[in-house]
Amino acid sequence: MFDGTTSVEVQVRYAETDQMGIVYHAHYLVWCDVARTDFLKKAGSNYAELEKTGLKLAVVEANVRYKESAVYDDLVRIQCWPRELSRRTIEFGYLIERVSDSKRLATARTTMIALDSKNSLSTIPLEVREKLAVVKDPVRV
Amino acid sequence: MFDGTTSVEVQVRYAETDQMGIVYHAHYLVWCDVARTDFLKKAGSNYAELEKTGLKLAVVEANVRYKESAVYDDLVRIQCWPRELSRRTIEFGYLIERVSDSKRLATARTTMIALDSKNSLSTIPLEVREKLAVVKDPVRV
Amino acid sequence: MFDGTTSVEVQVRYAETDQMGIVYHAHYLVWCDVARTDFLKKAGSNYAELEKTGLKLAVVEANVRYKESAVYDDLVRIQCWPRELSRRTIEFGYLIERVSDSKRLATARTTMIALDSKNSLSTIPLEVREKLAVVKDPVRV
Amino acid sequence: MFDGTTSVEVQVRYAETDQMGIVYHAHYLVWCDVARTDFLKKAGSNYAELEKTGLKLAVVEANVRYKESAVYDDLVRIQCWPRELSRRTIEFGYLIERVSDSKRLATARTTMIALDSKNSLSTIPLEVREKLAVVKDPVRV
Repeated sequence: MFDGTTSVEVQVRYAETDQMGIVYHAHYLVWCDVARTDFLKKAGSNYAELEKTGLKLAVVEANVRYKESAVYDDLVRIQCWPRELSRRTIEFGYLIERVSDSKRLATARTTMIALDSKNSLSTIPLEVREKLAVVKDPVRV
Repeated sequence: MFDGTTSVEVQVRYAETDQMGIVYHAHYLVWCDVARTDFLKKAGSNYAELEKTGLKLAVVEANVRYKESAVYDDLVRIQCWPRELSRRTIEFGYLIERVSDSKRLATARTTMIALDSKNSLSTIPLEVREKLAVVKDPVRV
Repeated sequence: MFDGTTSVEVQVRYAETDQMGIVYHAHYLVWCDVARTDFLKKAGSNYAELEKTGLKLAVVEANVRYKESAVYDDLVRIQCWPRELSRRTIEFGYLIERVSDSKRLATARTTMIALDSKNSLSTIPLEVREKLAVVKDPVRV
Repeated sequence: MFDGTTSVEVQVRYAETDQMGIVYHAHYLVWCDVARTDFLKKAGSNYAELEKTGLKLAVVEANVRYKESAVYDDLVRIQCWPRELSRRTIEFGYLIERVSDSKRLATARTTMIALDSKNSLSTIPLEVREKLAVVKDPVRV
């Protein structure tokens, strides 16, 4: 059940590895995005639908701390929660773990800002904000 | 000078390698796209400008034959030429080589179709087609 | 059950879209790779394990025909089957469909060649080939 | 001339855009990596060569602040400098600007850690460190 933190899984793709034999670091931001899409859907706000109404949530800051490497074919779990919320911005926290051994692979934070269809600063609709409960970080992110 | 075939260079990015230690095969299509952007610009049709007029060239077929592997930091040259042209479609050929030893890395073909702003079938504007001279394949693609 | 053709699903990521509002064409090759990983696993040959024994399957040819566009958040099904098999090469066919309306998005073919740990031509191990049954193309690829 | 800060340019690829019509945020980390490769080369340490000796520089932290959007075909300049250096880690700063109007697109920081060929903690070779002069951040990163 949705209680403010969601969890989604991805399987590491060959395309996501690099010649170091591990997942290339930029792909963790893509996984965070996958988790965000999933989070908003479970929180009752389909982002694909939101964009059709003209609202966009653009990333204005991203931070990732890498602990362990994910490798090809690993099943990876990304937990996601809103850690700060204002009229104009929302910040998400992420905990990224390998499923097989529960090893912490990374933590991350991203801050999103609301833009309208003309890319001007906008506000996050009240009906979206009402569905979101800020969650205290379960781990340092 | 532009004579129907253009040449552009890219340097292999770490992000483009995979755990086999070589460039992941899907990235060659990105390089072909880089070469297409460059080709159209040199042929007098800036694709970024074309899209603003509502025209889109969508890929309907892509074929790549891989001969040798490109590796991290290789300087790679992509030659591009129009090999077939009709009112609705344009097919490009590509020759991808390593600059240092002129080794052939791959050849490719992509077919593009003209779409309007509503994604309906459209035609390639006459002023674009007039700038394009079909070139006989210099190599098997 | 595994009967020579497998089916796997991916959900379109925001990162996979381009400014045309659709999935960028090169990502279909990544989905085919996801389907191949899944196929080999279901056929009893884990590719991650195969690579640890020194065997690599490198792509030597790829062909994709694009019919309809996939968009953000679409659930996409990729069917995969071996269409040709020899001591040194294996060719896979792919059928890529949107799950919601069963629309055919693309078909594809990729040919893989066996390489050893020194990237020299090798053969596909007999125990891998014995698990594979060539399947007649269910659609034109 | 190399004086502790380097500058490299990339042209935005169509593949780097997303359906918001701008460069997808994760690609900025790839550009930082391109700048790092270029920096090390200009500083006298070819990273491709370093990896062949068994040394790897793995990213342990990455931070990006996004100010303005880059769009398709923009020429983008990435400045890169070492902002902190120790026996085991090196932190780089980045300033990412559009060339045409010198607009600041983003700033970033990444911290790298030295690993040996077995992925154990290692040290950055003295001959690499001697070539690096820590530079005071020219902008807030």
